[in-house]
Amino acid sequence: MKRIKIVHLLTSELPVNNVLIKGWVRTRRDSKGFSFIEVNDGSCLKNVQIIADSSLPNYPEIARLSTGSAVIITGDLVESKGAGQKWEIQANRVEIVSLAPDSYPLQKKRHTDEFLRTIAHLRPRTNKYGAIFRIRSELSYAIHKFFRDRGFKYIHSPIITGSDCEGAGELFRVTTLALENLPKQNGTADNTQDFFGTEANLTVSGQLSAEMFALALGDVYTFGPTFRAENSHTSRHVAEFWMVEPEMAFCNLEENMNLAEEMIKHLTTYILDECMDDIELFAKFVDKSLLSTLETVSSSDFERLPYQTAVEILKKSGQKFEYPTDFGKDLQTEHERYLTEHHFKKPLIVFDYPKTIKPFYMRVNNDNKTVAAMDVLVPKIGEIIGGSQREERLDILEKRMDETGMPKDAYWWYLDSRRFGSVEHSGFGLGFERFLMLMTGISNIRDVIPFPRTPNSIEF
Amino acid sequence: MKRIKIVHLLTSELPVNNVLIKGWVRTRRDSKGFSFIEVNDGSCLKNVQIIADSSLPNYPEIARLSTGSAVIITGDLVESKGAGQKWEIQANRVEIVSLAPDSYPLQKKRHTDEFLRTIAHLRPRTNKYGAIFRIRSELSYAIHKFFRDRGFKYIHSPIITGSDCEGAGELFRVTTLALENLPKQNGTADNTQDFFGTEANLTVSGQLSAEMFALALGDVYTFGPTFRAENSHTSRHVAEFWMVEPEMAFCNLEENMNLAEEMIKHLTTYILDECMDDIELFAKFVDKSLLSTLETVSSSDFERLPYQTAVEILKKSGQKFEYPTDFGKDLQTEHERYLTEHHFKKPLIVFDYPKTIKPFYMRVNNDNKTVAAMDVLVPKIGEIIGGSQREERLDILEKRMDETGMPKDAYWWYLDSRRFGSVEHSGFGLGFERFLMLMTGISNIRDVIPFPRTPNSIEF
Repeated sequence: MKRIKIVHLLTSELPVNNVLIKGWVRTRRDSKGFSFIEVNDGSCLKNVQIIADSSLPNYPEIARLSTGSAVIITGDLVESKGAGQKWEIQANRVEIVSLAPDSYPLQKKRHTDEFLRTIAHLRPRTNKYGAIFRIRSELSYAIHKFFRDRGFKYIHSPIITGSDCEGAGELFRVTTLALENLPKQNGTADNTQDFFGTEANLTVSGQLSAEMFALALGDVYTFGPTFRAENSHTSRHVAEFWMVEPEMAFCNLEENMNLAEEMIKHLTTYILDECMDDIELFAKFVDKSLLSTLETVSSSDFERLPYQTAVEILKKSGQKFEYPTDFGKDLQTEHERYLTEHHFKKPLIVFDYPKTIKPFYMRVNNDNKTVAAMDVLVPKIGEIIGGSQREERLDILEKRMDETGMPKDAYWWYLDSRRFGSVEHSGFGLGFERFLMLMTGISNIRDVIPFPRTPNSIEF
Repeated sequence: MKRIKIVHLLTSELPVNNVLIKGWVRTRRDSKGFSFIEVNDGSCLKNVQIIADSSLPNYPEIARLSTGSAVIITGDLVESKGAGQKWEIQANRVEIVSLAPDSYPLQKKRHTDEFLRTIAHLRPRTNKYGAIFRIRSELSYAIHKFFRDRGFKYIHSPIITGSDCEGAGELFRVTTLALENLPKQNGTADNTQDFFGTEANLTVSGQLSAEMFALALGDVYTFGPTFRAENSHTSRHVAEFWMVEPEMAFCNLEENMNLAEEMIKHLTTYILDECMDDIELFAKFVDKSLLSTLETVSSSDFERLPYQTAVEILKKSGQKFEYPTDFGKDLQTEHERYLTEHHFKKPLIVFDYPKTIKPFYMRVNNDNKTVAAMDVLVPKIGEIIGGSQREERLDILEKRMDETGMPKDAYWWYLDSRRFGSVEHSGFGLGFERFLMLMTGISNIRDVIPFPRTPNSIEF
């Protein structure tokens, strides 16, 4: 007999004799002459209810089945008389694979997210985290499919790198030098003895690599882990997170914004179509306004406005912000959320930021004050995408690198791309976890990642 | 007018007036009153030939178009009179976006792979490397689709980790400690001051994390970067590479082998179906036997035999091997290749390896000498997959950890999975780059990765 997963079992049209399921006990309760066992196998949010009759030979053992125990069940799929489910299984065999002790931490009660983070290896066994990680998987697939359907090629950009894309400097060092007995030269660490013969770090972005490939293959994207060694303890920061970074040759800022808007709407619609069972859990227990937020994101025309206009709106708003706004100051999350949640009540794209607050690679506009940057802002989150048209003019790029203190020698290869066949090109980065937070209403980024990495926290 | 990519242009059924293409000049040659320009946009291997008539207003500039220059062309798609192509474009406008200087390194001649590695940022602009990276992208997508179609959930396992999956020890350390001025305690590096408050490393495998999720969601897989700080200078080793690691609850060794075989055949067939244009380049220029190898892989029933039998075959073979074979010794690449290329002439799966040469997490067989391990061996490569049924019995797992010197305290969470709802489960790891080498006949792993990381090499 072939095992059937519960997600398929529960969509059966007709009763079926002799089905085989394998999973874990969520709850068990006794009735007169019966045990009702709720079994989940991770394939969907729903459990299947098993009716185990006291005539089963191992009924005394079945009656001791505890939450978290593993079982293999054969029986007949029959219409359920109970409320809330169409089907249940009348068991003719209940094999107990392993009995979880009473110390199993996930007993039937509400656990806090904080507690569940301490057992991150077990939390995907709960309804909420099972749902998150199924959505995370589906969203990943949707991203690959979105880009492939449009002719983009997927690039694996390097994780260990000698470059610092943003010039931001909050990097994790990667080394094979023995810290207990550091080899030294001239009083400092001898990098020539390190694995790569020089200093190496974890990447903060795949963009520069993706640019090299866009100028060869046309439209490309990366989807991989990126890192920030920021000592931040907020609910929006982790040290390790995944980014989606498309990069398009022959693409200007407007076309870049078009793709960003199309992608966000497409993915949101996809999740509403494909993951509704799991999404409903979040709409019910985590964020009552979730479905209306997702509808707004998937169906609105995103507002587009220059940074200058955004600043003026914020100044005229009469709102008290913690941080002041003025031309030349970066927008803070409070500003971004005001604009998207209160002023426009839908997603928006702010473009043409002051060049003083943006990295060297963004294309300088004719005003010589702003760059062809764009950020997509969405309700609950604020910035979810940052992107730009890239500076394709070698002389201006070199000037910007000098201004911002980027070492041109180390980037000879990047500059090569402007020497040989340079074209206008653009790209953006989507914070994958932030998008998941938008999709689920979850407010702490630690809760949408299998095993979050934050300062002083690396367990599992 | 909307731009059309060359991959779509060349499959046109009929002539089309007024098409717009954007790309880079591969070659240009003069004829009487014409320039023939070969343009590529990365969307496929093939170029489109442009006929630029000397009556075009900027013809003097067109006649100076150099290899690597960027162009935007409008014209009519017409049937080509030349050999080797169905369509060409009669240009009515040739806009020169940027003119590549004569120093452009990719002139029309054969370049060695070694040379191209020194310009890894430009090599995807060549026919060969464009083809590799298109296949790499397609294969990645095929992997996601394969697993999703079978109900597997995609897990992003952590890159920075406190664990050492294999106990192998060849790890990259990740740190924010200032190596120039290392904070010390008791004469050694003060790890408590490091970002994570303790030692952290780059992952060698996502398996242990994937196991935690398999025991919650059923069938899962990871597909992400993994790292080895081995000081190897072979054509098969890099410090950073991608692995595909499925992990299945309620799955024994045989079912694990079935999935591995099914996956390899499926992916090979997929690449033959979807990437034939690019594959043909490798069959022609890189490995004349490529197509027959791929046909064998996609259509053979993989031989399955115990390690013990494999050793006996090798001993009886009369072959001179560099390394001796005997029960308890690991198979070397020369042995693996002999078995698959010469003895069986098809892929094979060797299982039940001696426990002394395998990691702690593999399930101990009843003979107490072997473990339920399996390796898939393929022609040209040798081992392409390694996997096992995992030890689900807590007491035996603990004993194995003691025997192999794994610190049980640090793995309390891993042991938890055998305390609570433990079930038989299995998984394997596919070296993504090795599979790409099999698909293309490329013999150096550095040439199937965008920017390879090897000892003393971290450029780009």
